[in-house]
This record gives sequence, C-alpha cells and structure tokens, in this order.
Amino acid sequence: MRILIDSKGKKYPVTDEDLHTNWGYIKKEDIALSSDGDVLETHMGHKFTVIRANLNDYIDLMERKCSIILPKDVGIINAYTGLGYGQKVVEAGTGSGATALYFANIVGPDGEVFTYEVREDFAQIAGKNIHEFGQENVTVKNQDIKEGIDESSVDLVFLDLPQPWDVVEHAVNSLKVGGYLAAYDPYIEQVITLNKVLKKYGFSELKTLECILREMEIKTKGTRPKTRMTGHTGYLTFARLL
Amino acid sequence: MRILIDSKGKKYPVTDEDLHTNWGYIKKEDIALSSDGDVLETHMGHKFTVIRANLNDYIDLMERKCSIILPKDVGIINAYTGLGYGQKVVEAGTGSGATALYFANIVGPDGEVFTYEVREDFAQIAGKNIHEFGQENVTVKNQDIKEGIDESSVDLVFLDLPQPWDVVEHAVNSLKVGGYLAAYDPYIEQVITLNKVLKKYGFSELKTLECILREMEIKTKGTRPKTRMTGHTGYLTFARLL
Amino acid sequence: MRILIDSKGKKYPVTDEDLHTNWGYIKKEDIALSSDGDVLETHMGHKFTVIRANLNDYIDLMERKCSIILPKDVGIINAYTGLGYGQKVVEAGTGSGATALYFANIVGPDGEVFTYEVREDFAQIAGKNIHEFGQENVTVKNQDIKEGIDESSVDLVFLDLPQPWDVVEHAVNSLKVGGYLAAYDPYIEQVITLNKVLKKYGFSELKTLECILREMEIKTKGTRPKTRMTGHTGYLTFARLL
Amino acid sequence: MRILIDSKGKKYPVTDEDLHTNWGYIKKEDIALSSDGDVLETHMGHKFTVIRANLNDYIDLMERKCSIILPKDVGIINAYTGLGYGQKVVEAGTGSGATALYFANIVGPDGEVFTYEVREDFAQIAGKNIHEFGQENVTVKNQDIKEGIDESSVDLVFLDLPQPWDVVEHAVNSLKVGGYLAAYDPYIEQVITLNKVLKKYGFSELKTLECILREMEIKTKGTRPKTRMTGHTGYLTFARLL
Repeated sequence: MRILIDSKGKKYPVTDEDLHTNWGYIKKEDIALSSDGDVLETHMGHKFTVIRANLNDYIDLMERKCSIILPKDVGIINAYTGLGYGQKVVEAGTGSGATALYFANIVGPDGEVFTYEVREDFAQIAGKNIHEFGQENVTVKNQDIKEGIDESSVDLVFLDLPQPWDVVEHAVNSLKVGGYLAAYDPYIEQVITLNKVLKKYGFSELKTLECILREMEIKTKGTRPKTRMTGHTGYLTFARLL
Repeated sequence: MRILIDSKGKKYPVTDEDLHTNWGYIKKEDIALSSDGDVLETHMGHKFTVIRANLNDYIDLMERKCSIILPKDVGIINAYTGLGYGQKVVEAGTGSGATALYFANIVGPDGEVFTYEVREDFAQIAGKNIHEFGQENVTVKNQDIKEGIDESSVDLVFLDLPQPWDVVEHAVNSLKVGGYLAAYDPYIEQVITLNKVLKKYGFSELKTLECILREMEIKTKGTRPKTRMTGHTGYLTFARLL
Repeated sequence: MRILIDSKGKKYPVTDEDLHTNWGYIKKEDIALSSDGDVLETHMGHKFTVIRANLNDYIDLMERKCSIILPKDVGIINAYTGLGYGQKVVEAGTGSGATALYFANIVGPDGEVFTYEVREDFAQIAGKNIHEFGQENVTVKNQDIKEGIDESSVDLVFLDLPQPWDVVEHAVNSLKVGGYLAAYDPYIEQVITLNKVLKKYGFSELKTLECILREMEIKTKGTRPKTRMTGHTGYLTFARLL
Repeated sequence: MRILIDSKGKKYPVTDEDLHTNWGYIKKEDIALSSDGDVLETHMGHKFTVIRANLNDYIDLMERKCSIILPKDVGIINAYTGLGYGQKVVEAGTGSGATALYFANIVGPDGEVFTYEVREDFAQIAGKNIHEFGQENVTVKNQDIKEGIDESSVDLVFLDLPQPWDVVEHAVNSLKVGGYLAAYDPYIEQVITLNKVLKKYGFSELKTLECILREMEIKTKGTRPKTRMTGHTGYLTFARLL
C-alpha cells in the first residue's frame, strides 16, 4: 500500500480518486504517475511525499472496531520472546488485527501467524485489514481458542482475552519445547490467576512486566518529559515451556 | 546452537565435552544422543531440557566486552520503526553484537544487517558471537561510521555512539525515503543536540522516548512491583526521512 | 472556613447565602444553625456534611490565576527538608499562594513564611487567599526576590521562578547553617544551570528528584493503575548550606 | 541534638567524647567550645560543620530495628491529608519511631502523636529514639491497636501494619468528621481488602497512590536519571470520614 505523508506525519492512503486534504487537493493523475519518494504538492502548495506504507503507517490508517495493543507492548513481547523470522505464532483474540500484523511483519514469509477471534464481525474486519496490507502469512480463524488450538510446534502463543488461564492447557499441547506463552492483561487480578495456572502446568521462567513509556518534549523553551502520559495499558506475562 | 536449561532458566551451552554444573554432571555421550525437547539428568538427579537456543538464550551466554542494549529498548526500537523481515539495517557501534543479532533475527535471510564498529577488539568478538549463533545476514565492519555509510536504500540506521549527530548527514544519504534513524543516548544533552541536527537535516516525525520497565513480584505473601528496578538505561530518539 | 462536602468529595464554601448545588439547595438558616459534623440535606434529599475546611479543601476552592504546585511535590519538599513547626521559610514566587499555605500550615504560629511575588495582581490574590484561610504567619511581599532577601536565619528558601540561579547568592546570605534551598523547575536545562551555580556557592547535599505519582483504580472488574496520569510537573532540586 | 557534618553529608552525633572519623579525630574540648555553624578540623585537616540536627539528620543516625517508611511516602501522606501544626495523630505500628517523628515535627507542641506498637522491643527503641531527639508531643503505647484506639477527635489515623482493615472500625470511632485514615501497604492484595472495608464503613474520597521517586544524575559527562532506583516501597491509601 502506498500513502501520501506530510512533514508532520499526517498520512493519507493512495486510492484511485483525487486526494482531498485539509491543505488542498492533489489530482489522481498526478498521484498515479508518482513513484515512491516523489514529492507532490496540493493546489495550495502543501507538500506530501509518496511512500510505501510501513506497518505503523498502515495500522494508523486501517479500520478499527476496538482498541489495539500499543507498539510499546508489542515491542516488549517481541523482545522477551526472541520472536524472529520463520517462527510460528498463535494469538487470540484478533481484534482489529494489529498485533497479528506486527507478528507477521517479523516472522515473514517462512513463518506463520494463526489468529483466533470468537466474534465474527471482528474476524471479518481483521481479515480485510490484513489482506489489504498484503500480508499473506496470517490466517484469521473465527473460532473460540478456549475450545482448542489446531496448530502444533508453535514458537509463541499470545493471549489477549479476559480469561487467558482457560487457554493454558491448550498452549501446553501446542507450543514446542522452549516456546513461549505471553499474555496481555489490564488487571492485576488476571495476572495473579494466570500465574497460578501457569505454575500448575509446569511453565518455567515466569515473568510479569509493565512497560511505562515516557515521551520527552524538546522545545526552545526547554526539555522535559511530556505533561501527559499513558499511566497503564496492560501487564505482560511471559512463561516458557520446557 | 543447542543448550541445556533447567526449570529456573539456568542455561549451559552444549559442547562436545561432559557438562559440569553446580548440580552434578552429564556425560557427553548422553548429550550427543539427545534430541531437542529431551530431558537429561545429572548424576545428582537435577533435570535439564535440551533445546535449540533462541536469541535471548544465546545473548545470555555469549562473550561480552561491553554492556549491551537491553531487550526492552531493542523492542521499542523495533516497534516504533516497524522493523520486519526483508529490511536492510545499518547500525553503529556493534559492541558485543547483541543488537545486530536482534535486528538480524527479525529481518531474516531476505534482509541484511551492516554493523559498524571502530574498535577492532569489539568487532572481532562481535563477529565471533554472530557467527557462532549461525546468523548469516550480518556483516560486521571494522570501520568508523563517521567517515561514511557504504549502504543505500536502508530501512533503519541505528546509532549507539557518543556523538550520533556526526552521522546524521551520512544517514540522510543512506536511508530510503520513509526510512528511520534511531538513536540510543544515555544523556539528555545528547538527545538535545541530536534533535537540533535532525531538524536541520529535515527529518520528520521526531520523537524521543524512554522505556521504564517494571517487573511484578507475585508470591504467596502478595503481589507488588519489585523493590529494585533499573532507573534509566537510555533515551530512544526516532526520526523519519521523508 | 467551613464547607459543605458530599460523599463524592464535592465541596461548597459556607457563605451567608442559601447554598445552590447541582443536587438542590439548602437554606442559609439551616446552614447557620449547623455545627461541624452535622449532615444537611438539600430539598432534593442530597446529603452534605458540614466540616471545617482543611488546607486541601481550601486550596481546591480558592481563587487561582496561575497553576499551582501539586501536593505530591510540596510533600516531597517538606519531607526532604525536614520542614516542621516553628521554622522560618522564604519562598518566591507566590503565585496564588497555595505553596505558602502548605508551608504555613506546617510551621504554625511559632514559625513564619515570607513569600515574594513580583506581579502585583498575583500578590493581591494570594494575600486575599491566605487571609481568608485565616493563616496569620504568612507575609506576602510584592517585591522581586532577585533584588534581595530581607530575612535571615531562614530554614528553607523555596524557589519557583524561571531563573532560580539568580537568587542563590541571596539565599546564601539568608539561610542559617544547615538550612535548605529547594527549587521547582519544569525544564532540565534549568536544573543543570542551577546545579552549577549551587556548586559554585559551596552548597552541600545536592539532589534533584522527580516525583511520579500513580493512582490505582480499584473496581469490581479489577485493579490497575489508572489509564491517565500526569507525566511530569517539575524537577525538585535540594541543596544544603553548611 | 547537635551533629558534625562534612561537605559530602557524612554525619556524626556530638557526644562528650573525642570524635573519631575516617578522616582523623577532633578533641572533645574543641567540640564542647563550638557553636552552631562553626567549622572544626580533624588533625588530618578534614572539615566538619557543627549544626543542630534536623529531623532527617537524626533519623539517619538513630537506632533502627526494622525498615522505615521513606521520606517520599511520609511526604505524600502529609500532603494528601493536609497535616499541619496543632493536629492530633494516631499511628500504628511504631517501628523505630521515624514516622512518629515526622508527624510530631509537623504537628508541633500544640499537636499530639499517639503511636501504638505491639512489640515491646520496638516500642522501647522507638521511645528512646523519640526522647533523644527531644520531641515531647509523642506518646509511644505498647498496645495492640486492633484492640481499640483510646484517642478521639483525631485528625489522622495512619496504619502501617499487615492487616489495616482490622483497625477501620476503631478509626471510625476515633477520627473527627473530616479526618483521614491513611495506610501504607506493600502488597496490592492488602489494598484491595482495605478498600472494600473502607467502603463498607462509609469512608469518602478513597484514593490509592504510589509514589515513584527518580533521582537525576548531573555530571560533567551529562545529565540522566540514575541507573538504579527503588522500584516499589508501598501503596498509600487515603480515606476521609464524613
């Protein structure tokens, strides 16, 4: 997917229509003739660069019906599980498909992502989002993961659902030895229950983390952490099957 | 690389020698005959599982001559730049090679990582570490990145060196449109100078983040954030070339 | 000052008029006849308790022309300087007078607070606020503290102004041996400059702190840190004259 | 109490003996003749200033049998309850007496602090510590606060004990209308139980806070938050009786 982006990071997807922005329009013929890296101007002189959307561009633009896990948390999941190309990932629930896209972007064409979503409407939107981004290594399954995981020899089972402990037994059967279960839980009570169940099933290297991200404000007046910040998204729990 | 790991996460690399641990030894013949997932016992009955080392296992075990960037920070870099399979990354300095391995694990065989290290001793150790892990998509260059970047059409230039601003002009010439420069700076003064130079060279979407990671302690006595935590590692600055 | 407060913490000052609230009114005669601790009802049945306003109640209700230092930061100042009854405090600038009230509430009738404010309009409002709360140990001075501090043998000089380093020399002359200078600075550049000047003037026990306050959300659904939080207010710098 | 303090903040209490330090000794006659603010030199030329110990100096030097609540947390308690001169405080448990001293330093001679400690050995040490500092407005009670609070019309009941909910009913009977209960709990499970009991007893303005304190490192090399920090001490819960 190609997009037009200005110097502030304001983004518009390229379609086969004229582009109308708050700073003027660009004709579809001009867009059609452009190459990646070209700079186009609206009739009001506002400049947009044509680029191939990367994952974050696309997630910003795609349709969402529910909140998504923030990049900070996906980044921590990737780093703590050693996620890499060629790996096999199972996740639930799919939501809008953003996390599946993050995983798919990393595991690449030699890897696979299977994402379970119990709600049909979410599964459909996610399927559309993933297809539009051109990611071919993701399978959206409109199934309840509590009833079982079809895949085996899995490197990572990622759970973002209200009662992740219901899936621990399935994860044991699905993960390869050395593989990880990771879970995203907003509430500490969820973490405590999950932890108990993970211990019961013999998981190793249990760890629960919280990532607090601060953004700095760097202005002529001075430098400081921003006044507003997100206080909490979710706890990230990791466990390894040995 | 294969390793032996116990239920506490204590790891030993598999070599062609007997394994001597604090909890007894295992004969080399037993290790040689084992498959991934097998459980071996020391003569004292302590159990170890044989697994293929993932990236984090390996980084824990490899030789280091300097401190490495923590997983939390690499994770944020990956998430905020949309790093994925098939991408081309340039980084400096290499250090022990841990960050190069993180990037290589993600960009995979269709991607490439070029890592510049001015110190010959560091470059050698990093080369050995990367080779031992079996990663073939990394090129260690014993060159000073301040003298130029050889690669072009790069998706990510990552800088972990005292004066990253000296490399900004080279990054402009090296990055593809839409690509990212990312920098890791322990000191706020570095961030402020880098920010000025990035603006001067026309970079977009400037952002400086700090990732504070808390670990939770979940015990029978109760649940709480751990008493000790790392207060600061470095600031992460991102900028995009448009 | 007396106030009416409901179970949610919604507060109204007692005046000699009928009280009109969003949940109905209470007649002035009923208020006049009430004692501390009595519960009054509006004509719609909403209950309010009559109490003597404490400091925080009053600061919530008083007139403000500028932002005030939050309780978390005043609390840290008090704790790190060992502020107590009978001490003598100098501060600048006064702003709305909230910090002066915090100090005065602690130093009590045997202590004194002298607060310098260069803007006449701020000094007037602060004077009114302090007088209304009935605090008699505060002197508001419509003077520029950069021109000098009149008081000597001071226990604490607290500075909340853009260039606190201009006042360091005056503080040296004003503080007693063992006394503290404390400063509130939003920007790190201010902290760095102040630190240099404090060292030059021979201050001891230099320390710069930042207080990050998280609020927990405890609901039937579960317990978690609140989604929103204040990311940064100001850095607190402490130095002691020995 | 008088102390000798050097420019690094290293402190020694004044006794009627010669002072032996790591940097040489000072004769008792010289100390006896000195006044507050005088600078004395050891026989090796190391300089110490004579000052009257403030609260924090004293707490640093006094005997401790158990960990104490940190200044950051006491500061938040004071700020959120509006603690001031002349108020009446009840606390449990006493521990080494540090928190009682903080409260006593603020409420002053017109206020009172009653501190309950069930262990006789702690109560004795605390009594000695408080007496030595010369604080006359504190009463140490070797009693179990779960059996009742003797005092009434109290402004603040502060609880630092494993099951603070056992004391909530007593606090209701002891607090004046508008007064606060505050509790310090290391574990979130304690906070959750306490919260339920506080609601059951009709407390208002419930709030649970956590104070995360970062210290900045300001050196010639650069400025940054310190590498090490305390990750967690305790949660602070506040509730008001209306």
